[in-house]
Amino acid sequence: MMATWLAKCGIDTRIVDKRGTKIFNGQADGLQCRTLEIFDSLGFGHRAWRESNHMLEIRLWNPDEAGVIRLSDRIPDTIPGISRFQQVVLHQGRIERFFLDTMQECGAHPVERGVLPAELTIDQSLVEDPDAYPISVRLRHLSEKEATPQQTATSFNGQAVQDGLFRSNMTADDTHEILEAAKLDTKANTEEIVKAKYMLGADGAHSWTRNQLGFTLQGDSTDFIWGVLDIVPITDFPDIRMRCAIHSANSGSVMVIPRENKLVRLYIQLTTTENAADGGAAKADRTKINPDTILASAQRIMAPYKITYRKLDWWTAYQIGQRVGTNFSAHERVFLAGDAVHTHSPKAGQGMNVSMQDTFNLGWKIASVVKGISSRSILKTYQSERRRIAQDLIDFDHRFSRLFSGRPAKDVMDAEGISMDEFKEAFVKGNMFASGIGESCFPCLSSDATTTDECKAVDYGASLIVAKAGDPEDQGDGTDVSVAQEFRVESTQDLAPGILVGKRMPSVKVLNQSDARPWHFQELLPSNGRWRVVVFPGDISKPEQRAKLDAVGAAMNDQSSFLRKFTPPDSPHDAVFELLAVHSAPRGTTTIFDFPEVFRPYDEVDGWDYSKILVDEESYHEGHGKMYETFDISSKGCVVVLRPDQYVSYVGPLEDVGAVNRFFSGFMIPSKAAVGVSAAKPVPATNGLATMKEGNGVKAAAVGAAGAL
Amino acid sequence: MMATWLAKCGIDTRIVDKRGTKIFNGQADGLQCRTLEIFDSLGFGHRAWRESNHMLEIRLWNPDEAGVIRLSDRIPDTIPGISRFQQVVLHQGRIERFFLDTMQECGAHPVERGVLPAELTIDQSLVEDPDAYPISVRLRHLSEKEATPQQTATSFNGQAVQDGLFRSNMTADDTHEILEAAKLDTKANTEEIVKAKYMLGADGAHSWTRNQLGFTLQGDSTDFIWGVLDIVPITDFPDIRMRCAIHSANSGSVMVIPRENKLVRLYIQLTTTENAADGGAAKADRTKINPDTILASAQRIMAPYKITYRKLDWWTAYQIGQRVGTNFSAHERVFLAGDAVHTHSPKAGQGMNVSMQDTFNLGWKIASVVKGISSRSILKTYQSERRRIAQDLIDFDHRFSRLFSGRPAKDVMDAEGISMDEFKEAFVKGNMFASGIGESCFPCLSSDATTTDECKAVDYGASLIVAKAGDPEDQGDGTDVSVAQEFRVESTQDLAPGILVGKRMPSVKVLNQSDARPWHFQELLPSNGRWRVVVFPGDISKPEQRAKLDAVGAAMNDQSSFLRKFTPPDSPHDAVFELLAVHSAPRGTTTIFDFPEVFRPYDEVDGWDYSKILVDEESYHEGHGKMYETFDISSKGCVVVLRPDQYVSYVGPLEDVGAVNRFFSGFMIPSKAAVGVSAAKPVPATNGLATMKEGNGVKAAAVGAAGAL
Repeated sequence: MMATWLAKCGIDTRIVDKRGTKIFNGQADGLQCRTLEIFDSLGFGHRAWRESNHMLEIRLWNPDEAGVIRLSDRIPDTIPGISRFQQVVLHQGRIERFFLDTMQECGAHPVERGVLPAELTIDQSLVEDPDAYPISVRLRHLSEKEATPQQTATSFNGQAVQDGLFRSNMTADDTHEILEAAKLDTKANTEEIVKAKYMLGADGAHSWTRNQLGFTLQGDSTDFIWGVLDIVPITDFPDIRMRCAIHSANSGSVMVIPRENKLVRLYIQLTTTENAADGGAAKADRTKINPDTILASAQRIMAPYKITYRKLDWWTAYQIGQRVGTNFSAHERVFLAGDAVHTHSPKAGQGMNVSMQDTFNLGWKIASVVKGISSRSILKTYQSERRRIAQDLIDFDHRFSRLFSGRPAKDVMDAEGISMDEFKEAFVKGNMFASGIGESCFPCLSSDATTTDECKAVDYGASLIVAKAGDPEDQGDGTDVSVAQEFRVESTQDLAPGILVGKRMPSVKVLNQSDARPWHFQELLPSNGRWRVVVFPGDISKPEQRAKLDAVGAAMNDQSSFLRKFTPPDSPHDAVFELLAVHSAPRGTTTIFDFPEVFRPYDEVDGWDYSKILVDEESYHEGHGKMYETFDISSKGCVVVLRPDQYVSYVGPLEDVGAVNRFFSGFMIPSKAAVGVSAAKPVPATNGLATMKEGNGVKAAAVGAAGAL
Repeated sequence: MMATWLAKCGIDTRIVDKRGTKIFNGQADGLQCRTLEIFDSLGFGHRAWRESNHMLEIRLWNPDEAGVIRLSDRIPDTIPGISRFQQVVLHQGRIERFFLDTMQECGAHPVERGVLPAELTIDQSLVEDPDAYPISVRLRHLSEKEATPQQTATSFNGQAVQDGLFRSNMTADDTHEILEAAKLDTKANTEEIVKAKYMLGADGAHSWTRNQLGFTLQGDSTDFIWGVLDIVPITDFPDIRMRCAIHSANSGSVMVIPRENKLVRLYIQLTTTENAADGGAAKADRTKINPDTILASAQRIMAPYKITYRKLDWWTAYQIGQRVGTNFSAHERVFLAGDAVHTHSPKAGQGMNVSMQDTFNLGWKIASVVKGISSRSILKTYQSERRRIAQDLIDFDHRFSRLFSGRPAKDVMDAEGISMDEFKEAFVKGNMFASGIGESCFPCLSSDATTTDECKAVDYGASLIVAKAGDPEDQGDGTDVSVAQEFRVESTQDLAPGILVGKRMPSVKVLNQSDARPWHFQELLPSNGRWRVVVFPGDISKPEQRAKLDAVGAAMNDQSSFLRKFTPPDSPHDAVFELLAVHSAPRGTTTIFDFPEVFRPYDEVDGWDYSKILVDEESYHEGHGKMYETFDISSKGCVVVLRPDQYVSYVGPLEDVGAVNRFFSGFMIPSKAAVGVSAAKPVPATNGLATMKEGNGVKAAAVGAAGAL
């Protein structure tokens, strides 16, 4: 994700991974709807959507009065209306493929496999100099044998053992990976030094980078023991293609995750509820855990239904606590993300999602600083925003795990047992949290008071890049991310109550004014590092709105505006900011020539730009998005500022372009300086920023990105 | 299309093309919604949908009373509700890429470039022997120079001339093509003989194959002269991103086709309306036609708006008549398709569509015969079905062209001028015809009596593979495609008035019973050569419907049923027929175990099949398809038989599986014989069936496919 983001922004990046190949099976698989929105913004949402299994319904199976499991509830898996995508399942190897392909399309360096970081030093005297390369990383090249994870080599843990080599998810476009791995030995045991401006450790729960920095994970270290089987099931259990939570009376729980290619993942509790009574802390004898013992547990839990398999794709067992990192960066130069700063149980399908969203938050910020567009001050918002999310996630997971692993209560007097009603409620709320979008995705969710207080969703707090009322320290993880008083801007949330400052921009269909094509609004926000300033002028066939639109156009075109001040001369007109307009006048009697030129910039080769003026009207074939009505946008109009990651920074009146100027002046660098930085481009490749990607279990990831493009 | 279809069916095929490379720009571009449905069935509809420009609205510009062009009408470009796709534009080179990639995925031979057919002979004594190879084709390998079309070499006609090498549609995945072309000289001037069972000439208006067979095109040879420019326009004409028909008062007409990559195609009338008064037959001085003179015509027609360009991607000029081939095959061994059997003007965007649909009709038939599943009798339906379509197309185009090229009438007394109301009506009706689906796509279109009689859509007539009332000769092109009386089956159209026998199966959303995932019904009908028997048992929670369902299951499972009789032993259960069921009982209280096993076949490795039982119920996120209501399917249920190309063969009562048995017995070969044929597989590659693909202008295409897979 980090390397892809930086490639999209044109930043020179190196990425190293100690493993010899990408992943081919097993590992993470759940993709939440917000993750698919992000994939779509990166250009490969459709690939994940097509290849994945879609999960539509959750079914809860609980013991009846006789102790026999029965279907007790059906719940939609993704809350209807929350996103244009729904939760799907696709194994991590395919996700890696999509990122690798996208990096290649952007001309980025490929992942350097079989490379281990050996030493990290930071020159603290240079960390505040934006042009310096304060980071040095010594890298060692591994042999093919060293680069092969042990569980693949032993073929017992994590590898297919029955029916020969069954690798359901090995696809034709992966063969190149395997050929490359065979070449590793030619460079084995050589070393090199990388000098970098910035670095990311996305190197897993046992993060080498985190250890080098002296940071720790804090939290509980105990959990119940669960086994995981990826199988093609042979069963008479009727809901095997649904996401199921099965609580047996006395034998533990199973979660069913139906997957692509006829696979089903089973999360199977291995400690019985008797053992769980002591808090689950008793360590099981791990040498006795193997596919046969895991399957036997599943068979006990799912009885009287029968389940077996002939194809086993992957298996594992885990016993993980809930922990959060104390620091997400050192000097805002070396950053940590993913399992390196948060670990939790996998059953909510959060791991891959929250981890990728960490660096989706960080990538554009580093790119913007490296390019000289933004000051380094914005980098502190990575920790304030993402550490807060990690804390919320761990709180949620802690509660959810205990409910999942507990023995169902026999009746209301059974105080030691878990109430299945409570479990269901937690499942529903957890699902809202897990979506990455959450409860107040106005207007899709009802404002049910019982859910809004507990369900914390991604809602970034006030900061120099989120113009929201309130205390930045309270709304984040405590990091000071406030802006100087002179640049403080207040949003006028009332002008668009459905476009919430701090949340991702929600999406409905709008039409292009020039060709009547319907687009989901989010499709117009690809991840390319650009800020968007979206003008909602209302019905411009009314003279007062037309006059305001003309005034907005004039103010944004003025030499003192953010657009002129922070866009480098001689760069494309939308290099830093993309201006969009969504009006509500009748489409048939409106043309782009009714708009100021700033919304339809002229190019002497390509002519007028037809892509930036939209209209809120019914489409011929795809319904009516009703954007003004859905987001309750004032008929007086408004201006919305969106970050490059689609989160809302600001909502304010049409008349106050000055507030937008002030907002950007709080962290952006006037363009002359920017030109100087981006001109200093041809740095040697070894000066690049290096990223080391996680392997399996022990992960080593350092991201380096250096030099402007 | 033909090579892809046969590759999907596992038939060994060779395809040769005299050109050295695929096409990179220019040529055909319009894709009708039915074509996108077909692409989707072949697995690449989404690629065309994503890369193409979508055309949503047609705008008619006519002279006002002062003779100045004004916007007079807006019409939806694709009739709402007719298809899940809408008309789009994407140049032929990308379409070729999708086919080439799909062929490669299926393990087919690549296109052999720079290969010209030199001699064709047919041994007439062998044509009725299904195991014989009666066709011999002598092929000659060309040099790179010979394989390069002249207009590319001269860089004047059909090539960009301004702003250097502007090939907007040349993409990264095409580089291999160019490298391969450079290797042609190594085989130049060598020859080989191909022996084939079947052959297709898809070699264009000047078809070498057609000439070898002694067949001709019949029809008018005159038309108006039009120029074509593919440009990135610089203009103040506000509707340049809409599909426009612009009739000037006295300077002729322009059609605007907005395309991908900022391109716009302009069809520009070069004969003025004064010249048109003599019928347009006067030949223009073609040496004077060049991009400058074509642009000057456009500027006159579009005045007072200004239009110019800096980027020209491609241009051409044409003067084509409307003609239809006398014969579409010789002995049902050598077939002709596309421009080889029908030529017409390009403005209705039909050329590429109708041509691809020719071979989409033919491919599965040849595959089925080569595999020994069907008798050769079905091959006659290619001509009866497609020649009739070609005749309808030419009739339509003849009328449409004259309306487009004529001078607008000044008033109702102006008998020589064209009525703009008549033009609009023709445009709307033409659009229905052009969709490839047409007027009576129940229930999407209103049953407006004024449209149904004139607008002919794809509606295949009665034949041995379409169980429809009426005279097969009247409903086709006159070819005898009737079935023996003992196999004659009558459909009961009343059981599902919305699923019309002879038309393509329409599509709404249904849910998979096992996982609640919504699918467009057509997505469940991929093009793999299989027939589908779709059972609509109604509400199976009602005992009488459940009993009928059980009886259908038993009858289809019986040794005497079509399923057992025509499926080769030891082949997959759905090798020839795929059984689908769509019920209307409540999903939450139904499971696949409520259905006879024939609808959920058991595999000892993969377990139960979860993919074939569907339910007509509201989805959580994608609405309610209401299949029973939309297609007016009887609550008593029915059985529908679909051809491998998605056209409806039969609608009948649930109780009469015997009729289905009789229908298939009319042309299918019991499986023991089929086993014999498909066992005779390893024939030398040179025994394959060869297809020669069209070049540009002069096209040479012979398809050979031989031997069972």
